[in-house]
This record gives sequence, C-alpha cells and structure tokens, in this order.
Amino acid sequence: MSQIIAIQSVSLDGFSAGANQDLEHPLGVGGPDLFSWFFPTETFQRMHGEGGGSRGIDDAFAQRSFVDVGAWIMGRNMFGPVRGDWPDESWRGWWGDNPPYHVPVFVLTHHPRPPLAMAGGTTFHFVTAGAEDALRHAQQAAAGKRIRIGGGAATIRQYLPRIDELHLALSPVLLGAGEPLFAGLNVRQLGFTVAESAVGENATHFILRRTQLK
Amino acid sequence: MSQIIAIQSVSLDGFSAGANQDLEHPLGVGGPDLFSWFFPTETFQRMHGEGGGSRGIDDAFAQRSFVDVGAWIMGRNMFGPVRGDWPDESWRGWWGDNPPYHVPVFVLTHHPRPPLAMAGGTTFHFVTAGAEDALRHAQQAAAGKRIRIGGGAATIRQYLPRIDELHLALSPVLLGAGEPLFAGLNVRQLGFTVAESAVGENATHFILRRTQLK
Repeated sequence: MSQIIAIQSVSLDGFSAGANQDLEHPLGVGGPDLFSWFFPTETFQRMHGEGGGSRGIDDAFAQRSFVDVGAWIMGRNMFGPVRGDWPDESWRGWWGDNPPYHVPVFVLTHHPRPPLAMAGGTTFHFVTAGAEDALRHAQQAAAGKRIRIGGGAATIRQYLPRIDELHLALSPVLLGAGEPLFAGLNVRQLGFTVAESAVGENATHFILRRTQLK
Repeated sequence: MSQIIAIQSVSLDGFSAGANQDLEHPLGVGGPDLFSWFFPTETFQRMHGEGGGSRGIDDAFAQRSFVDVGAWIMGRNMFGPVRGDWPDESWRGWWGDNPPYHVPVFVLTHHPRPPLAMAGGTTFHFVTAGAEDALRHAQQAAAGKRIRIGGGAATIRQYLPRIDELHLALSPVLLGAGEPLFAGLNVRQLGFTVAESAVGENATHFILRRTQLK
C-alpha cells in the first residue's frame, strides 16, 4: 500500500484558498498570498522551468512533498476553471504542455473525458466513479510509491481519513473568507497529531501524521 | 479612548478552548495544551507567586499583554464554571484571593451580583447590560490605559470589531473540537492584518492589528 500524503498552505484564519475562484483567480481572491513562501523556492522555480530560487527551509519542505510520488489525485477545480460538462477538450490544465507532475494524475469529476497525455510523463485520467475509485487507480499506478492528494481544500477534506501525512504550510496572512481546511472536521478524532514543526523563511511548517486510534 | 487588546492561544485547527469546559477542565478537554507555551514563562510564574520561569520570546510576548492595562473585560465562563443564577457568592474566580489582574475586571453575565473586591486591587464588576455597557465602564476605569478583553473565545469574537490589537499565540497542537476563534468571521473585512510575527520557544506569535477600512 502506498503512503498517502498532502500539502496545504493555510492562512492564519484557516483558509486554504481564497473566495471566488475563477480563470483570473485560480487560487481565489487573496489566494496567492498563501503561496508566497512557495513561489521563491528553487523547487517551484525548477517546476516552472526557471533557474535559481531559494534553498532554505521553505524549499526543503516544498521539495520533500514531491519526492517518491507515484501518482496524484486532484479535484476538478484544481485541474481547471471549467464547470459542468466539458464543452470540448481544449482545456489542458493550468500548467502548459509539460505539467510538473510527471506521473499519472487522477482528476475527480462527474463528467467523463478521455485520458489526456501530456509531455514529460503526466497523464490526466478523469475519474467519474468517486474518490474511492480514484484511490484504487492511484494505488495501482503508484506501485508502492507515495500518492499525493493535490487539492483543493474540498478534496483534501474528503480524503483526510485516508491521508497518512499532511504537511501544513502556515502563511502569516489573513484571508477573511475562502475555503476553510478543517472547519467541521475533528482532526484529532481522525488520529492526527503534530509530528514535526519548523520555521521557514516565509511560512511555518507542520507535519501532521495520522496514527491508528485504539 | 483606550486601546483595546486581546491575546488568544489557538490550536493549529483553529480552536482557542477545548470542548466540555467544566470545573475539572476550565480550559476544556485538551485546552491546557494551548497554553503550554505560557505556563513555563516568568510572566506566568510570577502571576502565580512563583519565582523563576523562562525569559525568552514566549515570555516577552506574554509580558507585553499585561503592560499598561487599566481594565479587563471577560466572559462569565472565564470567571468561573457557575451557570445561570448565582446560587450564592462563594465562587470568587479561579485565581485565589489575589487574582493576577490588579485593576477593575468587568464580567459579562445575565445574572446580577454585587461587586467583588479582592486582594491586590482586583475588583470584579458584574455587568448585565451587555458588551457595549461593559466597554463604557472599562473605558472609564482604564482612564486612557489599555483595555484587555480576556476571553473566552465567544467574548473575543463579540468584541472583535472593537479590538485594536489581537495577539495570537499559535500552539503546535490539534484539539479536534472546542471553541473556534474565527469560524464564520471575516477578520480581513473587519480590518485586521498581520503586523508582526515571531517564533517563540513553544508557540508562534502573530500580532494582528485592525486598521480602519476605506
């Protein structure tokens, strides 16, 4: 069985995306502030074909979330802004021709669409049979490597009872509104404890691990 | 006009008290974990008549929240576990004969009770005419010094539109359930921004300041 991991940036007031996501605001209004720790890192810069970038603690945490990942699962809203039926196959993700995944990516959607193979080894598979089915596919594809739940918040919340390790990157900002990560969930009852914490240059990092409850 | 301040400890999942507060659990189940940064500080130890204690960053933040405070306001549940009518006047707070306030303390309650003068300058005044009335009394009593809103979470939430400076002490723990500090509130719309942050020995400290919106 693969280990299931996720990483979410959260604001001080508990949001992991801003309100009113759309084509101009894929992270919602104010959402990019959540990622101001991530953008300057070498890991992010390299993912987007750029050189340079910081190599401190924030980068170390960004980097480890990509190590040994054999499959991704993401919600449809992370894949793109299209809602409802796919009008055509022109939307190919936010990431250009060579997305930064390089493994199979299972996209949760209610609307079927053929698999989409991109440059660099990323293939988007559109799963209409639900979260458990996506997880089965991801387990097969990952072949023992880690499965990363990509987001957004609703997808993380859905998989939380199955996630083994959740990395929270707390950004020192207030969003006021948006998608709350934990609201209404009892993460302690789900078995999570804070296993590790570290202060980065622009965020504070917490590794939450889920252990089986007695 | 006095500056209005507050300090709240919060868990990573956004709670500032545990669930099921009662006489044995004045901070709710798991609540003391929120304050594990505060208990070892010199400020806390001195408040409780003990010597010693740590003098690092956590202590500096604890200390500044007591500086130049001329009046406190607190919810009845912070004063004690008694609910409904006061059966008698035997409950005199959690803090012994010499509470660590040393100024007038206005306790919000629906149930009248005569003022209670304690050793060391603390007098508890029981205010039944609501939060605005308590604030007027506190303004008079503070005479230009700062007013501190003591808690619990419901009281902080109630006064949030009036609070000028809110110090959040983020403890690296998960409570799972309890009193959420910000749920349903838009702190950005209220005018708060993160003015300052610092990493303490056992908590991360954020100073939120409210500025008038245009």
